[in-house]
Amino acid sequence: MRQPEYVRTVQSFARRELIGQEKLLDSFADAPLPLYGRFADTGLANWWLAKEHGGLGMSLEDSVRIVAELAYGDAGAAFTLFIPVLTTSMVAWYGSEELRGEQLGRMVADNASCATLGSEHDAGSELARITTTVRRDGDTLVLNGNKAFSTNADFGQFLVVIARVEGSASEYLAVLVPRETPGITVDKRWEMIGLRSSGTYQVSLTDCRVPASHALRGNGLRLLEVGLNASRILIATTALGIARRVRDVCMDYAKVKTVKGAPLASNAVFAAKLGQFEMLIEVMTNQCLAAAREYDAIAVRPDAGEEFLRVGTLKSALTTKMFCGQTGWQIASTASEMFGGIGYSHEAVIGKLLRDVRYVSIVEAGDDVLRELMFSRYVVPVSKRS
Amino acid sequence: MRQPEYVRTVQSFARRELIGQEKLLDSFADAPLPLYGRFADTGLANWWLAKEHGGLGMSLEDSVRIVAELAYGDAGAAFTLFIPVLTTSMVAWYGSEELRGEQLGRMVADNASCATLGSEHDAGSELARITTTVRRDGDTLVLNGNKAFSTNADFGQFLVVIARVEGSASEYLAVLVPRETPGITVDKRWEMIGLRSSGTYQVSLTDCRVPASHALRGNGLRLLEVGLNASRILIATTALGIARRVRDVCMDYAKVKTVKGAPLASNAVFAAKLGQFEMLIEVMTNQCLAAAREYDAIAVRPDAGEEFLRVGTLKSALTTKMFCGQTGWQIASTASEMFGGIGYSHEAVIGKLLRDVRYVSIVEAGDDVLRELMFSRYVVPVSKRS
Amino acid sequence: MRQPEYVRTVQSFARRELIGQEKLLDSFADAPLPLYGRFADTGLANWWLAKEHGGLGMSLEDSVRIVAELAYGDAGAAFTLFIPVLTTSMVAWYGSEELRGEQLGRMVADNASCATLGSEHDAGSELARITTTVRRDGDTLVLNGNKAFSTNADFGQFLVVIARVEGSASEYLAVLVPRETPGITVDKRWEMIGLRSSGTYQVSLTDCRVPASHALRGNGLRLLEVGLNASRILIATTALGIARRVRDVCMDYAKVKTVKGAPLASNAVFAAKLGQFEMLIEVMTNQCLAAAREYDAIAVRPDAGEEFLRVGTLKSALTTKMFCGQTGWQIASTASEMFGGIGYSHEAVIGKLLRDVRYVSIVEAGDDVLRELMFSRYVVPVSKRS
Amino acid sequence: MRQPEYVRTVQSFARRELIGQEKLLDSFADAPLPLYGRFADTGLANWWLAKEHGGLGMSLEDSVRIVAELAYGDAGAAFTLFIPVLTTSMVAWYGSEELRGEQLGRMVADNASCATLGSEHDAGSELARITTTVRRDGDTLVLNGNKAFSTNADFGQFLVVIARVEGSASEYLAVLVPRETPGITVDKRWEMIGLRSSGTYQVSLTDCRVPASHALRGNGLRLLEVGLNASRILIATTALGIARRVRDVCMDYAKVKTVKGAPLASNAVFAAKLGQFEMLIEVMTNQCLAAAREYDAIAVRPDAGEEFLRVGTLKSALTTKMFCGQTGWQIASTASEMFGGIGYSHEAVIGKLLRDVRYVSIVEAGDDVLRELMFSRYVVPVSKRS
Repeated sequence: MRQPEYVRTVQSFARRELIGQEKLLDSFADAPLPLYGRFADTGLANWWLAKEHGGLGMSLEDSVRIVAELAYGDAGAAFTLFIPVLTTSMVAWYGSEELRGEQLGRMVADNASCATLGSEHDAGSELARITTTVRRDGDTLVLNGNKAFSTNADFGQFLVVIARVEGSASEYLAVLVPRETPGITVDKRWEMIGLRSSGTYQVSLTDCRVPASHALRGNGLRLLEVGLNASRILIATTALGIARRVRDVCMDYAKVKTVKGAPLASNAVFAAKLGQFEMLIEVMTNQCLAAAREYDAIAVRPDAGEEFLRVGTLKSALTTKMFCGQTGWQIASTASEMFGGIGYSHEAVIGKLLRDVRYVSIVEAGDDVLRELMFSRYVVPVSKRS
Repeated sequence: MRQPEYVRTVQSFARRELIGQEKLLDSFADAPLPLYGRFADTGLANWWLAKEHGGLGMSLEDSVRIVAELAYGDAGAAFTLFIPVLTTSMVAWYGSEELRGEQLGRMVADNASCATLGSEHDAGSELARITTTVRRDGDTLVLNGNKAFSTNADFGQFLVVIARVEGSASEYLAVLVPRETPGITVDKRWEMIGLRSSGTYQVSLTDCRVPASHALRGNGLRLLEVGLNASRILIATTALGIARRVRDVCMDYAKVKTVKGAPLASNAVFAAKLGQFEMLIEVMTNQCLAAAREYDAIAVRPDAGEEFLRVGTLKSALTTKMFCGQTGWQIASTASEMFGGIGYSHEAVIGKLLRDVRYVSIVEAGDDVLRELMFSRYVVPVSKRS
Repeated sequence: MRQPEYVRTVQSFARRELIGQEKLLDSFADAPLPLYGRFADTGLANWWLAKEHGGLGMSLEDSVRIVAELAYGDAGAAFTLFIPVLTTSMVAWYGSEELRGEQLGRMVADNASCATLGSEHDAGSELARITTTVRRDGDTLVLNGNKAFSTNADFGQFLVVIARVEGSASEYLAVLVPRETPGITVDKRWEMIGLRSSGTYQVSLTDCRVPASHALRGNGLRLLEVGLNASRILIATTALGIARRVRDVCMDYAKVKTVKGAPLASNAVFAAKLGQFEMLIEVMTNQCLAAAREYDAIAVRPDAGEEFLRVGTLKSALTTKMFCGQTGWQIASTASEMFGGIGYSHEAVIGKLLRDVRYVSIVEAGDDVLRELMFSRYVVPVSKRS
Repeated sequence: MRQPEYVRTVQSFARRELIGQEKLLDSFADAPLPLYGRFADTGLANWWLAKEHGGLGMSLEDSVRIVAELAYGDAGAAFTLFIPVLTTSMVAWYGSEELRGEQLGRMVADNASCATLGSEHDAGSELARITTTVRRDGDTLVLNGNKAFSTNADFGQFLVVIARVEGSASEYLAVLVPRETPGITVDKRWEMIGLRSSGTYQVSLTDCRVPASHALRGNGLRLLEVGLNASRILIATTALGIARRVRDVCMDYAKVKTVKGAPLASNAVFAAKLGQFEMLIEVMTNQCLAAAREYDAIAVRPDAGEEFLRVGTLKSALTTKMFCGQTGWQIASTASEMFGGIGYSHEAVIGKLLRDVRYVSIVEAGDDVLRELMFSRYVVPVSKRS
């Protein structure tokens, strides 16, 4: 089956800029890497942004195809390139028309990035416990706090900050803060064990002031839930890309490696493992696509924003992230034993793939949190069960 | 989301005839059970048979929805009711127009069943080693041999026999043999450990004679491969139905069982298990549907028979059977520890569900065989990889 | 390495009475089966009872060797024969000298059995919630209540009943009640899914009266904890016996079954599975023996009873039951896919082995309960960690 | 239970030099690290070398206790310190008295290291396919070849080289080559993904000449099998040390991390995971000790060398390495999801522990090779089964 044009563009980018560049990508070089600029040259930067803002308006299903190809090359690059969707989807659905036009328009024009400041050190995945505050001062909002992990924050054009309304126990806002706003400090870049071509930062906000119109409409925590739907599905998709890469790396090795005088590829135990990998990869593929289509079915509705607020965290997003995270890890774990001593060295790519795929089950809430959420939202209510 | 009418019909049948009837269904009572007649009363018997033969012409996607509901009630009933699809799809695509009209028409008219005689004791899953033979005697075909496992064979209206052409090393035929043909002996009904509401038989053929026109067109082994596509997807679907039932049985128990003075349903370890189950059930659902749609996309083509011959075993069929078999077993295994001592007795239904789901990874080739097939057909050829 | 005499006796018994008798053993025939009498003829009945009572005084390490051989033949027979150790160890350590002499002496003389009445339907594994009561009436104790699962209770010579002291919230007694005491009713024998050569009963006590001297010394719940140490290690050992049997059944099959023209035994995927089984069986063996030795090291101390009261549940007992239950299930699960269609029928023994081994992770507390106990007793206190 | 003096010495060394030094240990600093000299200061360097050579003559059981403590601190340090046992045990049993006295005596005196040159790039774990050769030239042996992975080779005092006898298809020798011998070139140090405080080298031999008396007695491949018994058991033991460290790191985190307002340590899902870890750690401990004792029982025999030649690869060594490798990986994998985003960064130690433990299932033959060996040596011969 012939791939769509955009998929071929991405494949070609991955072959040119990612595959074979593992040493660079894994080196924790200064972020953002120049290759992100070259991705923009393909015309696909921020591919999901709406046509009304000058973007390509591609669907989440398209995104799954793009991200799988990028992650096949390098999951860190994929993550860097798609993670703004978390931020922009909140702005697109819950920002004022003016704010959307201005910020998303500029983002398209500049092929820029953006970031969400959600998680905090002590709160972990329990966002209701965050301590970053926002208070109104006339027509201005003032933000203060420390945010633990924010990918792309250092070089994003704007940030969306999730903050508790000062003086309120249960009110939260999501506020768009341009990156150049005084009071934003990038305290450090985290040195991660994988995904090292991406940049995740700790950021503090000290009396950051933005116009009140920069607050997005609705409860900040719920907005974040909505934003995470797209990003969780795409994070899951990076596990799919990695799993495909792992398979191909195994097959390449099996052609040259001999066991008992025959190529490893003709070994029955090897074949059984690869047959199992392929089966799982096919399931991951179908799951990523099914989740994306379910998301797109809501996203094309005229009342998409309202509908997403109503449903909050999609079951499909929870499912896809958990399943692909677990399965990707299982595939990479198994494969990491298949290359002998070389496979334990940095001369083989499997070590990087194993470290990279690990993030899928950690970022944007670990499986323990997601299982509990799945249970309370989708198992306890009988009508929501699959 | 409102379910289609036919799904509600099946749900109502399952509630009436299957759920709560576990003792009877598990009793190895004489086959076929009277309830199969009552299923015919719903008008849905052999729901997939084409309209041209008087059938309903329902798709494999519809079949997935039906089988999931039936298997929720009883996997043996589901299996009994859908397994003729293996046989009829071979007849529908590779039988002469006359044979099709006659046999499938009569089957629709009588709400009858039919069966395939494929596997043999010594050959196991290696069908190329079967020893049942067919020879031409004028305008007649004469069949001889012993067939190990054939579900519904005793009460099927016709049988499709896979046989080696006498005197040839590599030629096989699939021949339709009416059940009443002299020389067919049902040697025994196998007592299975699960799926006990279904009947699987050992059958011998002694000089069975049918007109030469009863041979289906094409290589018998390839035809069987084609026929197995639909049945493997539906076998997988029974694991989905069982998994859903397991989940609900756990939830029902968790409402009445208390742990440390609180309902089990509020226990975090229980919630984590159920959250994981739900995630896996959602993935199984998407996989069964995706595979069925892929099948249907071929089945609606005017050249469906030729196209299926060309592709043989669908990757989606292999994937779905392996995945749902493994996952269903994993869910039922985990659940089988969750009911204390009662769960180890026949007073709980979990023991039956565990035994029932076991067949998915065994029937129509075990995972070792399928993994190898997956590897050689879909991993070795680079272009066929997912 | 030559096996001890008693092991050879048991092996010979197993070959004569158990192996090949699966149909009978699995038939749920009236309990106790005549073969238990024939086991007594070997002179090994209740092999662990002390020499002072006329017994053989064999250690738990010896018991592991005996139980592994019995369970190789039939886990239900093994369970029936060793489970009295739970009861007798409570009597031996915490009964008065007179009670011990009388009851254990008679048990040795008659090659009799005995049983513990611990678990109750609503309390499950939380024994502190039991509702069976004991009250003192002069020199007499009066017991009332319903006990859910008690193996051998119907034909035991005496029962040890765990009961709450009437009027007290936290006081429990373990009371020896001769089987013939008026007021004991066996309400039913549970039909279990496996271990069907053993008999487990639901028993009610209505104003059962025994002399006050029949109360064992100490808190009844703690005594039960102590008693469970030996039985949990031996329950685990049945999983070892079953695992060895599974392995041998696979190897026997692999000699006669051919795959691609070669015996299954020469298939690399099969070899890999069996190599993994053997590795796990070796670990199970070492774990059972290590746990038994640790137990024996306490049991030979002059203050064994006090020391056991002090330590309560042994870490080694928790470990062994959890590990062997999980591993035995894993081995039997994997094997249950290796026999094709025959393996799904009652003509193969694997189905019975799978059902039998399931009980190990259920009886005498499931893994969820044991993991929690392990955590609170042996992980939280830093000095108790391994 | 009070630990032996030598264990406390090692614990104190680990606390002083390893725990908290993860950044340095993980930095791939020049090998050998100065801390190896400081280990010698404890008097325990090469603790297993025989008293006749001036060593401490400690048993493999002692070694298990030492290595578990070292690996708790750093598996790379543990590996560096014990891996010479592979080499010295070949020399001790199969070297001439003079060679032993000279080489092992000097090693004790200098607290030196040594190394084995076994594996080659193309041969992988199939040592019969090695191409390094040895030929006799008068009273001299001449060695030529390339060896892929040899730990400690660069700074070892001597090397034992496994080589094919030139001109023979099936004869192999193990030859002791002093490190300073002309013709030995260390081609590179491998940059490994874990165990980075150890040094593993690629080494080539060009016309290396040693006296004929430097050949060890017996078939070189068999000698290597014998040598691997001790090292495989100790490699397995490093997984035990790592697993214990993982558990403690989790518990430390659980004290400070809160979930829903309560410490993580009081969370039931966390407790279940740690309870399972502890169970597995206890089994690993017992398995390592059982294997070591089995080894020691042979090692103390006067004919130990002959007996080891007769048995070759011990079942206990295969079992322990496979089991601890698999279990250690499982524990570290599970734990690697338990620290949120921090756990994905280099600020947490879990990433290092995960990378370190990976080597256990790779070095000295992967599980695929060991399972096959287990099958052919210990399952096929009925009498060798556990």
